[in-house]
Amino acid sequence: MADQQARPGEDKRPSEIPVIRWEEPPEGPVLILLDQTRLPSEEVELVCTDASALMEAIRALAVRGAPVLGIAGAYGVALAAARGFDVDEAAEALESARPTAVNLSVGVRRALAAYRDALTTTGDPTAAATAALAAAQALHREDAEASARMAAHGLALLDELMPGGGHRVLTHCNTGALVSGGEGTAFAVALAAHRAGRLRRLWVDETRPLLQGARLTAWEAARRGMAYTLLTDSAAGSLFAAGEVDAVLIGADRIAADGSVANKVGSYPLAVLARYHHVPFIVVAPVTTIDPDTPDGASIEVEQRPGFEVTEILTPQASAVGGGGGVPLAPLGTQAYNPAFDVTPPELVTAIVTEEGAVSPVTPQALAALSARARATPAA
Amino acid sequence: MADQQARPGEDKRPSEIPVIRWEEPPEGPVLILLDQTRLPSEEVELVCTDASALMEAIRALAVRGAPVLGIAGAYGVALAAARGFDVDEAAEALESARPTAVNLSVGVRRALAAYRDALTTTGDPTAAATAALAAAQALHREDAEASARMAAHGLALLDELMPGGGHRVLTHCNTGALVSGGEGTAFAVALAAHRAGRLRRLWVDETRPLLQGARLTAWEAARRGMAYTLLTDSAAGSLFAAGEVDAVLIGADRIAADGSVANKVGSYPLAVLARYHHVPFIVVAPVTTIDPDTPDGASIEVEQRPGFEVTEILTPQASAVGGGGGVPLAPLGTQAYNPAFDVTPPELVTAIVTEEGAVSPVTPQALAALSARARATPAA
Repeated sequence: MADQQARPGEDKRPSEIPVIRWEEPPEGPVLILLDQTRLPSEEVELVCTDASALMEAIRALAVRGAPVLGIAGAYGVALAAARGFDVDEAAEALESARPTAVNLSVGVRRALAAYRDALTTTGDPTAAATAALAAAQALHREDAEASARMAAHGLALLDELMPGGGHRVLTHCNTGALVSGGEGTAFAVALAAHRAGRLRRLWVDETRPLLQGARLTAWEAARRGMAYTLLTDSAAGSLFAAGEVDAVLIGADRIAADGSVANKVGSYPLAVLARYHHVPFIVVAPVTTIDPDTPDGASIEVEQRPGFEVTEILTPQASAVGGGGGVPLAPLGTQAYNPAFDVTPPELVTAIVTEEGAVSPVTPQALAALSARARATPAA
Repeated sequence: MADQQARPGEDKRPSEIPVIRWEEPPEGPVLILLDQTRLPSEEVELVCTDASALMEAIRALAVRGAPVLGIAGAYGVALAAARGFDVDEAAEALESARPTAVNLSVGVRRALAAYRDALTTTGDPTAAATAALAAAQALHREDAEASARMAAHGLALLDELMPGGGHRVLTHCNTGALVSGGEGTAFAVALAAHRAGRLRRLWVDETRPLLQGARLTAWEAARRGMAYTLLTDSAAGSLFAAGEVDAVLIGADRIAADGSVANKVGSYPLAVLARYHHVPFIVVAPVTTIDPDTPDGASIEVEQRPGFEVTEILTPQASAVGGGGGVPLAPLGTQAYNPAFDVTPPELVTAIVTEEGAVSPVTPQALAALSARARATPAA
């Protein structure tokens, strides 16, 4: 069962608001999430006492964004183990909650492997649960460190591509502290540029239909004191045409072995616009996002989400009157095409920045080498 | 939804709902508009008793869309004349209400010229007011006829570009009966294809920020029984990539002498995507949209609209809590970049379809010849 409670401390910076945390009150362990569907108007936490509550939270996008989904998935396995549920069943359900996000699956499998290894070695379910939790916590910590390394590599790349600073960066969706154990992926690069005094403007795509840009990225940018401006997704075209964009920085939900990038719907049109205007299109994601088992873009399963996300507006302040619980925008009975992601082919991607460094140009060989290097590096 | 109880005959076709009409009740002449800001949930009429009320309605987008703005502007001059207001002052104010829409200016000037001519000839303000009204009514009638001719020329072009029918057409914003004395511009072409049994799918961009696609085009398509699907503007990229779009059909608010097309923001990204995917990008607009006094795209003044259109959602069903009267989507104080239009250069436009025929390729010479032909054709 998920429980919600309003939290004081609105003026805290994003890094001080735990996006995800494990707690062990007397009544048993819980996973507590900042409910991202309620931002920016309310800061409400969701308390998950079992994997199915977490699965619902993942489906409803209360927790979202590639890296943090991996962390959440790992904690979900640990939660099932600690609470004495069927761990394999919980792992399978969690993995299927968002089919495109490879990190979710990676996180789930890592905690599950730790659980199984410990169970095999010790025969003790409690020790196995502890091992699963340790795996989740290690992933959480590593992700924070990876985030800092991506930010450094990404800023170095920006400075190399555009010497002199004053970067005007366009971003899409939300890729900051809300998606990460640390400060995020693409957003972390922009934040590093801001801290170094080299960010002139962060252009924030609102990111329809769920407005992660307007609700979440704007919220993070405001709290960080960054110079940001919000725009509708299709107004980006005018910015490119006016020469107001120096680089596009986005995250990724899955990167195929050939370098095809699945990310929030709307990323591909930005890649085409960036190419047409000779602007670098840079993807920032942890190495775990690269999926060697997905050979190419066509092999990426793209999650189709319910049409009501498009035909209704879902906001906590609006009274619910539509079939999806939101305010209707379109005539009743309107069908909507609502893919959650799109796929950008490698030839449109200038560089992929990971915690292990940047790959440019994006080739299957370079990505494979990067993944091998990451595997060879022992986790901190 | 409210409109389904509010009115009997909800299955009326859009052409039977007057978008704009002149009435002369005992208390004096009025211009009555269907308030497009309330669609699709409510069908509410706005009664304008003077030009300043009309100007407000134009600014608030209660009446919108290039051709009907010309008709509204002409009626506005007639209204000022009939009510005994300063006609020159009213004309100037109306012309400035939407700077990018050239048709508004053309309509205003046509009624003003009729008024002045009659005043010079007869010295009688009543006769001059009658002349202004006659000019507005003639424009209204001509626009309906132009719409039918655009639809025929546009469908012929679709059939030529894609023999065999089964057209899958992507459109942006609203260009149907709501913007026209007749059935519209781009939408009228899709409707003609539908009537001829050659429209397989109308893909409807929702068109942020004001959602004219979701609210208005979906409403018109539903009433016409067309096969349509709504999508967020940036999901169009996925449709192009999947080969699901045979042609893009859009309207125009101003066409420069070099063939640059100003249209609803989001049109230019579609043009770039269409080019990248070798899909025809077709602009449908009456000849009056071609402005010989605007030499090129850079000379087109693009209206910047208030940021709250992006930072808040404006819907009649949502309670007003934000500074702009809508429901806040972004953190308080968020700045937004909100151009109403963008400009597509002629090299990205496959064809411009007018009531006088289609121009392809789009060159200054071909456009000038078309305008000359239109001027030579006496108005019906």
